[in-house]
Amino acid sequence: MNTLRQSTKGFTLNSFFVTWIVTGIVVAAVVCTSCQPAEKAGEADSYAEDRALIEDLQARYMFALDFGDLDSYVATFTEDGILDIGEGEWRGRDSIKHILASIPRRNDTTATPETPELHPATGRHAIVNIVLKIEGDTAYGRAYWFHMSNDNPQRKANLTSYGHYEDVIVKVNGKWLFSRRKIFNEQVAKWAATAENPCW
Amino acid sequence: MNTLRQSTKGFTLNSFFVTWIVTGIVVAAVVCTSCQPAEKAGEADSYAEDRALIEDLQARYMFALDFGDLDSYVATFTEDGILDIGEGEWRGRDSIKHILASIPRRNDTTATPETPELHPATGRHAIVNIVLKIEGDTAYGRAYWFHMSNDNPQRKANLTSYGHYEDVIVKVNGKWLFSRRKIFNEQVAKWAATAENPCW
Amino acid sequence: MNTLRQSTKGFTLNSFFVTWIVTGIVVAAVVCTSCQPAEKAGEADSYAEDRALIEDLQARYMFALDFGDLDSYVATFTEDGILDIGEGEWRGRDSIKHILASIPRRNDTTATPETPELHPATGRHAIVNIVLKIEGDTAYGRAYWFHMSNDNPQRKANLTSYGHYEDVIVKVNGKWLFSRRKIFNEQVAKWAATAENPCW
Repeated sequence: MNTLRQSTKGFTLNSFFVTWIVTGIVVAAVVCTSCQPAEKAGEADSYAEDRALIEDLQARYMFALDFGDLDSYVATFTEDGILDIGEGEWRGRDSIKHILASIPRRNDTTATPETPELHPATGRHAIVNIVLKIEGDTAYGRAYWFHMSNDNPQRKANLTSYGHYEDVIVKVNGKWLFSRRKIFNEQVAKWAATAENPCW
Repeated sequence: MNTLRQSTKGFTLNSFFVTWIVTGIVVAAVVCTSCQPAEKAGEADSYAEDRALIEDLQARYMFALDFGDLDSYVATFTEDGILDIGEGEWRGRDSIKHILASIPRRNDTTATPETPELHPATGRHAIVNIVLKIEGDTAYGRAYWFHMSNDNPQRKANLTSYGHYEDVIVKVNGKWLFSRRKIFNEQVAKWAATAENPCW
Repeated sequence: MNTLRQSTKGFTLNSFFVTWIVTGIVVAAVVCTSCQPAEKAGEADSYAEDRALIEDLQARYMFALDFGDLDSYVATFTEDGILDIGEGEWRGRDSIKHILASIPRRNDTTATPETPELHPATGRHAIVNIVLKIEGDTAYGRAYWFHMSNDNPQRKANLTSYGHYEDVIVKVNGKWLFSRRKIFNEQVAKWAATAENPCW
């Protein structure tokens, strides 16, 4: 305190010094606050950051689906998220999991010449052409999907189906999750897209 | 003003106070200015942000193409943008739209067993492996594309063609648009790529 | 200096003025320093930026592979990077290049009806569903790949194989490179994935 007084030439200036310190803090606070949007922009509020996180979600969804990891699969939805494969809306993680678990997996018993014991065939879904419009904590998505399978004795690769997604994705507690996913499938006429471009 | 004078102990200091406020503003301005590149980095000047916007453009291009939405399709090009499918350069939105509109759509009259009335087949183009070098407002792109079709009575999925794009993409009024897209197609020998890696 | 003294009303205040300038610089420095993470966030430290750079690496890897550009291919690995296609680990750029160079390229001598001279068939690998967990300078990747070929006289497009990657990618001198890539292939039973979801 003595040192401070020495450099500020006594009481009169010292009182000034206090005001000056306080104002310095205020200025710094104002400047720092005005900087924060920049910091957040890079981390969470930019289109790129949100899109990157949603692309990761889209990819994890596919792995979970193809590897039969139903817990990870439904965890990509909000608690009351909706899945619609063209047969009406299935609402909520529990409901979606229950329905998917009841679908027999066709590709569990294929034998191969190399492995005469039963060896599971494996299907793989891919997502491409992701279009995303992001408004705050809600994203509107369109994308194509397609499916490949080796469900034959030679494990030969086949393209089996394709279509598109129409998604609503929301940010809940900092995590992007599917609020609603509607699936269109071009191999089944009643599930196929209409003629109109679903994008903007 | 009186309150300010009280806290600054009279005229001498008050004059100082004014200088100090002014300088405070100058410092804040300088600091804020030096922060702005950070803010822009997150929003528009980072590789991630530009790439994210270009990926969205690439995806919207595909939807517009496959859904026959020619207005949205040509809107992904600059006004004088160039499209080259291997038959020379088509320049300008109007010209590209005119040529594409004149190409008969093969897949409009396929019937399906489920829908004896005429039901359109649907083709889907996908873009993958997007390589992007971005220099200011110009981006140089390379990517693969492929096409799937169900143009048969069973609506069976087929991989029909693939190739790659060589793009120049420019930012015009804050929006990325194709300035030039050249398409290579590996099913037609004269449109196929040369042996050299088109990337860097 | 004289001008400064005039505005600061003599020696007493001038001494104060110096302190004030110094402190102003300190405040500015502190504020600027606190801004720097924001600037870096947009450019290099955000998930989006790292993911964008890794996506570009993934895409360049495919072009280099398909166009037989072995130098660019091995340049996507670290010097001692590991490639494992299911036959054990190949370590180091030189070793990987040597092995790949010794594999005969099947698709160099296919003739086409249009080009009776020998015209090379062309294969294309694509990467989709990229899942990335990034921790500082190390990224853990999962993704699907598939391969298309036209290795037949008609240059007809065929889906020939698919599988997934398990990658470790590291940032070396500011560049993301493969430290380890393990390839799973669903057409060959001994190279196929296990049943467990490899993602998180």
